[in-house]
Amino acid sequence: MKRLKCVISYDGSQFAGYQVQPGKRTVQGEIETILSRMHKKKVGIYASGRTDAHVHAHGQVIHFDTDLNIPCDKWKKALNSMLPDDIVMKYVSEVDEHFHARFNVKAKEYRYHICRNENRNPFTRYYAYHYPYKLDYMKMKEAATHLIGTHDFTSFCSAKTEVEDKVRTIYEIDIYEGNDQLVFRFVGNGFLYNMVRILVGTLLEVGQGKIKPVEIKAILESRARPKAGKTAPPQGLYLWEVFYDN
Amino acid sequence: MKRLKCVISYDGSQFAGYQVQPGKRTVQGEIETILSRMHKKKVGIYASGRTDAHVHAHGQVIHFDTDLNIPCDKWKKALNSMLPDDIVMKYVSEVDEHFHARFNVKAKEYRYHICRNENRNPFTRYYAYHYPYKLDYMKMKEAATHLIGTHDFTSFCSAKTEVEDKVRTIYEIDIYEGNDQLVFRFVGNGFLYNMVRILVGTLLEVGQGKIKPVEIKAILESRARPKAGKTAPPQGLYLWEVFYDN
Repeated sequence: MKRLKCVISYDGSQFAGYQVQPGKRTVQGEIETILSRMHKKKVGIYASGRTDAHVHAHGQVIHFDTDLNIPCDKWKKALNSMLPDDIVMKYVSEVDEHFHARFNVKAKEYRYHICRNENRNPFTRYYAYHYPYKLDYMKMKEAATHLIGTHDFTSFCSAKTEVEDKVRTIYEIDIYEGNDQLVFRFVGNGFLYNMVRILVGTLLEVGQGKIKPVEIKAILESRARPKAGKTAPPQGLYLWEVFYDN
Repeated sequence: MKRLKCVISYDGSQFAGYQVQPGKRTVQGEIETILSRMHKKKVGIYASGRTDAHVHAHGQVIHFDTDLNIPCDKWKKALNSMLPDDIVMKYVSEVDEHFHARFNVKAKEYRYHICRNENRNPFTRYYAYHYPYKLDYMKMKEAATHLIGTHDFTSFCSAKTEVEDKVRTIYEIDIYEGNDQLVFRFVGNGFLYNMVRILVGTLLEVGQGKIKPVEIKAILESRARPKAGKTAPPQGLYLWEVFYDN
């Protein structure tokens, strides 16, 4: 028996999310169906965390156990030939039996893409949030400095969460333009339910002048979801990379 | 009565093509339905030419006549608010009653995008042709020089065409890398049915060493479709721009 770690990428636009839901098309469901067929028994996979419907992954990490005698490089080819077009296996490696894709996460990077063109862009409708309104980038960057560090992020978390401890550490927030898009980049030790989308929604309200950069402190302290901005839509969000100890 | 010229862009992946076909979703069908509803009568549109199923447009041009008293800038907003997400109206201008989107075309630019990554890229599966194989770019560029100019392009035209005169002039062919993709750019006075896709398919075979650059001359002279390369798939193709006299 060996444990395989896989870095996968998926276009979330035609999935009801990462996690299996009865009767819906999910990333986990597609991969488990293929693995179970290969193993002729039910095989479960474990991811670094869920992603919501229409959210993308540039580098999601999963693990699973197998007793099939297939070399790693063959695993990648075999799975890619069976996976649907919107999921791709980027790297497959054998890991220690104690490795766990979720419990061993050290940090995660998310990116959020915004299309700034005046016109809607038909080619990015599933891949970026169209937000053509005026934004003060300097104010958004100033607001971001108040979010970096260790905070109770209750105000930036969907009320639907079941997690009790809402303290997380954000290491980095970058806001930059690339390929005609505005990109928000977040690196942290963990992110709560909808946290990145609420952070982006709040930073956009700062950029619009509706929230002052310094008010971020009071929003964090209030521990009240309604104080923060709206939840930005899912199609702009990418789980970019998951970091582990070597 | 006034005539409006519109530059439109569309993501072809969810269309059966530009031209109306009974029971199928087409670009022309979507636009005519909206215009006919606005005018409370059947309104027809005229395009610079058709595009096939799954082929995209960065700048297709259409015209139509209207007796509605709406200023140009309002037309763009109104149509964009009613059009589906995969079609966008980029520019609307009033033109002379003699302007015709098809008959007045002076030149057209097409681009063909190829994804060169070893891995499939789920995000470009509808927007580029995945071709990870080895290519000799210099040989492709040399072959392109033999295609530039005025030639009978029978060998580079689908047998399904009804057009009799197959002489066309290609002004420019550029082959370059941008945004992680290989791009073929063609400018000419007109292109036959499937011509750009057959040109690309043939240039790829040159890049692979299956056809020598100098053999392009003999392929043109043979006037025989089977002498040229395969037809490249539709998802990499973009009608990029249509040129008219001012």
